[in-house]
Amino acid sequence: MTKLSWGLVGGGAGSQIGPAHRLGAAVDGEFAFVAGALDHRAEEGRFYGRSLGLAPDRAYGDWREMLAGETGRADRVDLVTVATPNATHFEITKAFLEAGFHVLCEKPMTMTVEEGEEIVRIARATGKLCAVNYGYTGYALVRHMRAMVARGDLGRIRLVVAEFAHGHHADAADADNPRVRWRYDPAQAGVSAQFADCGIHAMHMASFVTGQEVETLSADTVSCIESRVLEDDAMVNFRMSGGAVGRLWTSSVAIGRQHGLSLQVFGEKGGLRWAQEQPNQLYWMPLGGRLEVIERGAGGLSPEADRASRVTVGHAEGMPLAFANIYRDMAEAIRAEKDGRAMDPAADLYPRAEDGLRSMAAVFAVAASGKAAGQWTDARPPMFRD
Amino acid sequence: MTKLSWGLVGGGAGSQIGPAHRLGAAVDGEFAFVAGALDHRAEEGRFYGRSLGLAPDRAYGDWREMLAGETGRADRVDLVTVATPNATHFEITKAFLEAGFHVLCEKPMTMTVEEGEEIVRIARATGKLCAVNYGYTGYALVRHMRAMVARGDLGRIRLVVAEFAHGHHADAADADNPRVRWRYDPAQAGVSAQFADCGIHAMHMASFVTGQEVETLSADTVSCIESRVLEDDAMVNFRMSGGAVGRLWTSSVAIGRQHGLSLQVFGEKGGLRWAQEQPNQLYWMPLGGRLEVIERGAGGLSPEADRASRVTVGHAEGMPLAFANIYRDMAEAIRAEKDGRAMDPAADLYPRAEDGLRSMAAVFAVAASGKAAGQWTDARPPMFRD
Amino acid sequence: MTKLSWGLVGGGAGSQIGPAHRLGAAVDGEFAFVAGALDHRAEEGRFYGRSLGLAPDRAYGDWREMLAGETGRADRVDLVTVATPNATHFEITKAFLEAGFHVLCEKPMTMTVEEGEEIVRIARATGKLCAVNYGYTGYALVRHMRAMVARGDLGRIRLVVAEFAHGHHADAADADNPRVRWRYDPAQAGVSAQFADCGIHAMHMASFVTGQEVETLSADTVSCIESRVLEDDAMVNFRMSGGAVGRLWTSSVAIGRQHGLSLQVFGEKGGLRWAQEQPNQLYWMPLGGRLEVIERGAGGLSPEADRASRVTVGHAEGMPLAFANIYRDMAEAIRAEKDGRAMDPAADLYPRAEDGLRSMAAVFAVAASGKAAGQWTDARPPMFRD
Amino acid sequence: MTKLSWGLVGGGAGSQIGPAHRLGAAVDGEFAFVAGALDHRAEEGRFYGRSLGLAPDRAYGDWREMLAGETGRADRVDLVTVATPNATHFEITKAFLEAGFHVLCEKPMTMTVEEGEEIVRIARATGKLCAVNYGYTGYALVRHMRAMVARGDLGRIRLVVAEFAHGHHADAADADNPRVRWRYDPAQAGVSAQFADCGIHAMHMASFVTGQEVETLSADTVSCIESRVLEDDAMVNFRMSGGAVGRLWTSSVAIGRQHGLSLQVFGEKGGLRWAQEQPNQLYWMPLGGRLEVIERGAGGLSPEADRASRVTVGHAEGMPLAFANIYRDMAEAIRAEKDGRAMDPAADLYPRAEDGLRSMAAVFAVAASGKAAGQWTDARPPMFRD
Repeated sequence: MTKLSWGLVGGGAGSQIGPAHRLGAAVDGEFAFVAGALDHRAEEGRFYGRSLGLAPDRAYGDWREMLAGETGRADRVDLVTVATPNATHFEITKAFLEAGFHVLCEKPMTMTVEEGEEIVRIARATGKLCAVNYGYTGYALVRHMRAMVARGDLGRIRLVVAEFAHGHHADAADADNPRVRWRYDPAQAGVSAQFADCGIHAMHMASFVTGQEVETLSADTVSCIESRVLEDDAMVNFRMSGGAVGRLWTSSVAIGRQHGLSLQVFGEKGGLRWAQEQPNQLYWMPLGGRLEVIERGAGGLSPEADRASRVTVGHAEGMPLAFANIYRDMAEAIRAEKDGRAMDPAADLYPRAEDGLRSMAAVFAVAASGKAAGQWTDARPPMFRD
Repeated sequence: MTKLSWGLVGGGAGSQIGPAHRLGAAVDGEFAFVAGALDHRAEEGRFYGRSLGLAPDRAYGDWREMLAGETGRADRVDLVTVATPNATHFEITKAFLEAGFHVLCEKPMTMTVEEGEEIVRIARATGKLCAVNYGYTGYALVRHMRAMVARGDLGRIRLVVAEFAHGHHADAADADNPRVRWRYDPAQAGVSAQFADCGIHAMHMASFVTGQEVETLSADTVSCIESRVLEDDAMVNFRMSGGAVGRLWTSSVAIGRQHGLSLQVFGEKGGLRWAQEQPNQLYWMPLGGRLEVIERGAGGLSPEADRASRVTVGHAEGMPLAFANIYRDMAEAIRAEKDGRAMDPAADLYPRAEDGLRSMAAVFAVAASGKAAGQWTDARPPMFRD
Repeated sequence: MTKLSWGLVGGGAGSQIGPAHRLGAAVDGEFAFVAGALDHRAEEGRFYGRSLGLAPDRAYGDWREMLAGETGRADRVDLVTVATPNATHFEITKAFLEAGFHVLCEKPMTMTVEEGEEIVRIARATGKLCAVNYGYTGYALVRHMRAMVARGDLGRIRLVVAEFAHGHHADAADADNPRVRWRYDPAQAGVSAQFADCGIHAMHMASFVTGQEVETLSADTVSCIESRVLEDDAMVNFRMSGGAVGRLWTSSVAIGRQHGLSLQVFGEKGGLRWAQEQPNQLYWMPLGGRLEVIERGAGGLSPEADRASRVTVGHAEGMPLAFANIYRDMAEAIRAEKDGRAMDPAADLYPRAEDGLRSMAAVFAVAASGKAAGQWTDARPPMFRD
Repeated sequence: MTKLSWGLVGGGAGSQIGPAHRLGAAVDGEFAFVAGALDHRAEEGRFYGRSLGLAPDRAYGDWREMLAGETGRADRVDLVTVATPNATHFEITKAFLEAGFHVLCEKPMTMTVEEGEEIVRIARATGKLCAVNYGYTGYALVRHMRAMVARGDLGRIRLVVAEFAHGHHADAADADNPRVRWRYDPAQAGVSAQFADCGIHAMHMASFVTGQEVETLSADTVSCIESRVLEDDAMVNFRMSGGAVGRLWTSSVAIGRQHGLSLQVFGEKGGLRWAQEQPNQLYWMPLGGRLEVIERGAGGLSPEADRASRVTVGHAEGMPLAFANIYRDMAEAIRAEKDGRAMDPAADLYPRAEDGLRSMAAVFAVAASGKAAGQWTDARPPMFRD
């Protein structure tokens, strides 16, 4: 097994996202980090790249230089990760896809629904992989929830209750804190703050687990800190393509909550509850039965969960390995393509450009509904409306 | 200290509510059970009353007989509890109040907002105590939350997140189960099922703790079991008189949840979380600090919490004693009136006719908003609109 | 159903134990409180008794007066509770038993093993009920554990792990605190402090649940606060009559633990875990299966658990109602005797004089083993050695 | 920053330990995997090594070949990990140390105390790093506990309560299961089974956190499955060099426990509780204060905890990253040596040969005490007795 080669755009010195991607790509030994354009300041980027072990000719000064350089090589990278500021995701992802690279783009994939549709069309036309990093769906037990729903353990899904609440922007002084303030400023953050930043992860997870898409939604968005233009708290009700009812609360002013991403799924035949603060236990209650604790790593789980686990039962696995599962999925997809074989279906779970597009449409729908006193709004991108 | 004398209407042989009230009234030795009209079948009621130790002349055949009998006695009961079927609460409560008795009425106090307003007017006119049994606010730590908010520990309240979710009506077979079916039938249950039954407790608690009233609301009500006319799941967003934003989820199809009544309160200076499944711990995080666990019975709590506790720290107290606190509050109120003194303010916490009225108005507002695609609706009773 | 009549010795004004017993006896309406000798100061006791509603001639000045008074009455009390200082339990319990009264004695039943044997002999000779208040075994789910073991769900029991840890005597200043100091002074507390005070509850529970008696033990006793003569922390290993191995940790210096009474039972076919800080959930894992959460009040529990529950599933019950179950058991035993019928076997669970005796023998064995570097010691009272 | 080069002995195809070490070494990008002798079957080992990307001349057939090959190279590996069967650890570790390599040895480091002493002497003589993989001490919050103790937050430590309980060998059928049986067979496992396998991790953690060594101990060892020669359950009491009292329970028959490694530390001024099943939260109660939840990744932690964290607060980190911290510590130690500078003291936390030796002495002391009815036994290796 030779390693796949991997390149990174963004994630320069001092960033949080860079180390996270390098860790995710390195954990399983599937990818060798061989190329990068790590900083918008060319010299800093080249220097940092070399300090991380890149060859001088592959420590690029900017993404266009990297695109040109890699395109010309026989040993061009197998995968490019785009981890630059949000506003540049569309342009860079588009360019690499069109040049024939597989791409993993940080969320949000684009800034508008129209751009999102364009990425989807390009990905489809080129046949290249285009993934978007909704990394929380990499948790083994989230994948097990999906498998349980898919194989019918819960029967028809009636209700999904999702949550992503934290209190890290609750200080009134944050209104003036430059590290926080921009997130609530439409000029920099777009049409939504807390929903776009966190809530969308919970909504994507609801779709991932149920296998249903969000069709319409009604949002109550508020700014608990008054000077904010964009919302720091939102409640979203929604309806899904398979008939499920959804409820989603997200907040950045919930003091005492740390990283409260959780999902409850209720069907005709049972209910599930999972929370990322204790990601190695899943609570399952069959109708008329008793609440059971499903442990990550235990025997008898789904192939999807088994594939996403690395250590034995009782040893906690956390977020970094969940994230690494996205990379491992992509490695399998790339290898399968190279080998001309079907990929392992248990790995075919990484979020796609279509997910990035749907998320963007949902963000705009939440913002519109929030301004219209909660009016029910179509949450689908135009290209997916029938 | 002589015991107060107490009478019960309803709660006949085999009921759940009767033993709960007798326990609540007996626990602290404040009330002697001396009179009752326990069953709508006169002979059964008299027989059951005598079997519980009532004197033959105070084991009445119906509530009108009891009203007449007690009114004529020098040693008339100090308090009458009304625990009959919902549709009769208004008539009986009204009659006893007008005859000069203090009344504790089971929820819902009435079937309409108009009736609720009438009870409030009568209670005010007669000066008699009229309590409504929102018993969950009797928990010591719920009272401590209220005290913390009142004394400013949280600063201005921004957000309240309430929940009352269970899965006890989730079986599709419940659609035909007579013990469950009537709850979702408008002819028997009125305009709302799950919100009126459970959600209203959570909403009352939100008001109790924040000291703010619900002014407007928007509801998404659904029937997850299709044959049901009334809702088995609802999400309610609301706005409160002091500016707090509210979110409330209630469900009877959440398989795996047992009795998920919980409340989170977020203010400028900190956040609180309490859940009735573990009622002896309260989670408190001051802004910029660490999550702390406040134990019922520990030193340094509020007078309200101390008064509502009976056993030492670390020993769990449960629902029956929470409920008993309503009786203990009323005993103090009655004794204070008899003695012509002010009552202990830490006992002045039992829910009033006004709470019963507001709850009724909220139920109708939820039902109306739910039918109107979540339109924002005034949740106040007319007499409390300015 | 007429109430049984009940008398209390001890539990004067300001005590904690008096209200706890009055609550326990009152909750279910089985007992009327009609006689008492509540204080060693005769006038205070009479005054307090009358203030609690006792008739003047049954508000006695001391226990001898009460013994004489009640013995001479046709309507003598059905049950006498002894809640006086520890050193007097033996004398009072003995006197009332010999006069033909049923007795519920606070723990410890006696100060020596010899006295304990004498009480057992008297109880057997008179045929009167003699209960000892190990009240924690009144919890519904503790009784369910016992029922599960008895009916073979766990197979042969291999291992019992018990714990009773708190941190309420951890302050070095407690060495001089008169409210705490006496507990560690052999002149006042006897041969053991923390084990005798708390550990013995956990050991009794281990016997109650497994149906096995402690035969031998090895103890490691330490005084973490140096000036203390008696132990504030102990680890006890033991062997039981049915072959189970036991481990028991008790501490009063475990800062951060509140009232950590817990029990784990491991058999050939499954394991159980229960903790009194969350007494309404029991964790059960069948061999090769998944951890399940058994809820108090849920369907399908044992008759023993059902009888010990009062409120519906999901509503917490706490210590006061557990304690009340001892009184309810005794009421059933007394009524069955009066009626000349067999008692409900699901109520036949209150701790007996034999339990009080075995506990006393265990306390002395722990003290002796602790002094002898953990030497294995016979923990049985002489009269139960074969 | 160039990568350090790393070699692995053992961990062949299908092993669990190999991938764990490769992941731990890869996560932070500090080490490049360049050499290996992965299997005792030479061809299989070479083939597997090449399949993992090793150069053909560094995919060795056995450890002696690797020792010879690497010794002769200018670019010899910076670190060798020994992950072979237990009985070979001593020989291989010794050989590589003597040839001037830094070594990370899987536990147990040796099979006897005498061998352990020899390794310590060689490590000291050569000045090479010799680490032993007690990987659970790599958790950020375990390191924070150590830092809190070291800086005096708890005052003098009175008591340590450690636990490592699981139920994975509880099936009576395991007595004949070859995958399990050897662990309880002295011929293959040595003098101890469950204590040597799991309990020793808890004991090492107790020493790591308190900074105190175990001096004497008393053990109660039992075989709950009768056919076993070695213990499947043990309780160990101990005394530490700084005066702390220790209690340690370990079991492999505790059905329902998954991987119950936990530690409680109680000092004069506060208490700590941590459990590996929820490794991202640490419970701290200062004397006279309230229980607080310390979150991994939160602000205000110790440098040791900060260095051992990779992702932001609220995102769980698990066992693989704890383990990776041992590698990261060693990378810092190796780089500091190369650079001729002092290493970061917050990284100077990896377990040493001395820890491996002390653990071996404790294992033999537990076995001896267990056979001698719990007699108190010196747990120190002879070379560390005064």
